[in-house]
Amino acid sequence: MQVNGKHYRTVWMEDDKVYLIEQNLLPFKFEIFVSNDYLETCRAIKEMLVRGAGAIGTTAGYAMAQAFMQAPENDWHQFNIMAKSKIEATRPTAQNLFYATEKVFQAAINNASPIQAAQAAAERIAEEDIAACKKIGEFGNALIKQKANILTHCNAGWLAFTDFGSALSPIYSAHASDKDIFVYVDETRPRSQGARLTAWELSNQKIPHKIIPDNAAAYFMQQGKVDMIITGADRIAANGDTANKIGTLEKAICAKEFGIPFYIAAPSSTIDLNCKSGKNIPIEFRSDDELLYQTGIDEDNVMRKIRVSSPDSSGLNPAFDVTPAKYISGIITEKGIFKPEEINNIFKLEQ
Amino acid sequence: MQVNGKHYRTVWMEDDKVYLIEQNLLPFKFEIFVSNDYLETCRAIKEMLVRGAGAIGTTAGYAMAQAFMQAPENDWHQFNIMAKSKIEATRPTAQNLFYATEKVFQAAINNASPIQAAQAAAERIAEEDIAACKKIGEFGNALIKQKANILTHCNAGWLAFTDFGSALSPIYSAHASDKDIFVYVDETRPRSQGARLTAWELSNQKIPHKIIPDNAAAYFMQQGKVDMIITGADRIAANGDTANKIGTLEKAICAKEFGIPFYIAAPSSTIDLNCKSGKNIPIEFRSDDELLYQTGIDEDNVMRKIRVSSPDSSGLNPAFDVTPAKYISGIITEKGIFKPEEINNIFKLEQ
Repeated sequence: MQVNGKHYRTVWMEDDKVYLIEQNLLPFKFEIFVSNDYLETCRAIKEMLVRGAGAIGTTAGYAMAQAFMQAPENDWHQFNIMAKSKIEATRPTAQNLFYATEKVFQAAINNASPIQAAQAAAERIAEEDIAACKKIGEFGNALIKQKANILTHCNAGWLAFTDFGSALSPIYSAHASDKDIFVYVDETRPRSQGARLTAWELSNQKIPHKIIPDNAAAYFMQQGKVDMIITGADRIAANGDTANKIGTLEKAICAKEFGIPFYIAAPSSTIDLNCKSGKNIPIEFRSDDELLYQTGIDEDNVMRKIRVSSPDSSGLNPAFDVTPAKYISGIITEKGIFKPEEINNIFKLEQ
Repeated sequence: MQVNGKHYRTVWMEDDKVYLIEQNLLPFKFEIFVSNDYLETCRAIKEMLVRGAGAIGTTAGYAMAQAFMQAPENDWHQFNIMAKSKIEATRPTAQNLFYATEKVFQAAINNASPIQAAQAAAERIAEEDIAACKKIGEFGNALIKQKANILTHCNAGWLAFTDFGSALSPIYSAHASDKDIFVYVDETRPRSQGARLTAWELSNQKIPHKIIPDNAAAYFMQQGKVDMIITGADRIAANGDTANKIGTLEKAICAKEFGIPFYIAAPSSTIDLNCKSGKNIPIEFRSDDELLYQTGIDEDNVMRKIRVSSPDSSGLNPAFDVTPAKYISGIITEKGIFKPEEINNIFKLEQ
């Protein structure tokens, strides 16, 4: 996608170097981090310079390819096995990460030209991610009417994938096909990925949008100002129940109440058929510092962390919630748009 | 209520001085502002050292009494008329403010001992506000079960009134009657009155509570962790539709979805029978700076304002929303607890 009028992917590889948009600095500074070896790339994943399932998968694939390039002849096999486990230890709950390291490792470990094989396998992972997101955009665009007002929660844009994104991909596709759309961007407390990342993406793409407090979503729905909602997903269970960023459930309930279609957009790699229903998805509670403090830039462009809450109180900070299938109008994947109750049969046949 | 173990009202008068808790500094600093004359008290209202309908009413009454004390003999009548209009210009939409200035003015202007009459009338307004809030607490307490988990939104605590508050008054009453309760405090973006003021009040009262992101309210409801919701109100229409802080609507919709009782607590002065339904209540949009920036204290206790959102994006910031009567289980007033559809008949008879 575009940044200052130039095309970028979230992560890419040239020779033995991995290039990453430093997402910890966004939206205040746009910097490219250059990783010279697989350990630096591991650190970039761990320290969340890159985040989002798709983007982490691609980065992990590139890290594995870097390891094959760096492996010393006398310890080649052992080095690559150890590198793989180090990469996999960076973000232990990211499914795409394991998929990527495994693919690259298997393609290269017994190949006569292992470096070329690893590079090609890693590039294939990136291309697959991009192709899936592009398809989600095309399928999703068919749901978007001319002059539609779309609400989205959190960031499921290109920064979370290698390019295009999931929830924002249909929006990009609609904009590219000259539809005159407007996006309500939920701030998405406590980490404010909407106000920071989604708004930044849409600004760069010159798509009309406004940031709103999470609290205001139902107000705009009640006023008839929201035509549809699209969010991403962290995990989709076999029955269509969907885990996504905290607050998604509130938006989905309100959407149903006001008769507004509510869509999930996600590549099929997000579907976990081994998980029967949302009840089986554990919810991570993160540090309440995310809620009690805020970071941002002061008037001198200096990054600061301030306390925004009563000093003697503590908080509860669930990172995700589960939206039951009954609130979901459809799930937009790279294979097409499905009702939540269709997911199990359709993807069981494919997998 | 208690601050550091000592009893305070939000505002009080001694001789010709008005004392106010400086709410702009809360929860980071607790300071008492002393106003020596009615113009200083006007500035305190205008600059929101004091906020909330009940607290503003009491402060305006005291300001009017100060004016009578200051009025010069040679221009006594004219001075008091002008002072009244200056006080009324501080926050032109606050209904309680006009009620208070009018009451004090009428009590004193033709009285043989005008200063004593003004002081007595102003004190009566404060006492009426306190008595109403205390009654709300007693009625509301009857709804609260032993070991109840209560969710509240925004701050309708004693800081918004002269003492006790509206939504928090039943909570204080339950705590005082030894019920073992727990409060989920919605952060209440964008101005964070929950995380700042409600949490601060509950800390001082030693009532167990946690701050949660507004986005997490539905999650805790879904998990069966919330037994009831109580919020305040800015205006209640004749049909029971209620305007309150932005986000109240989302909580009410989710409460209905999960079968959780949702109560409004407000003195009957909040009921506006001239307003037929919520559709007649205009919604104020405030500066998007409230959303795009945050204030708080850094590690050196210095108050700072930082940008927390993408620099090239703007926002939409509706300050209130209207919760239709159908989502409201009951309205807790100083006269008793009523169904929203009863409001019109009951208060028509009384007014």
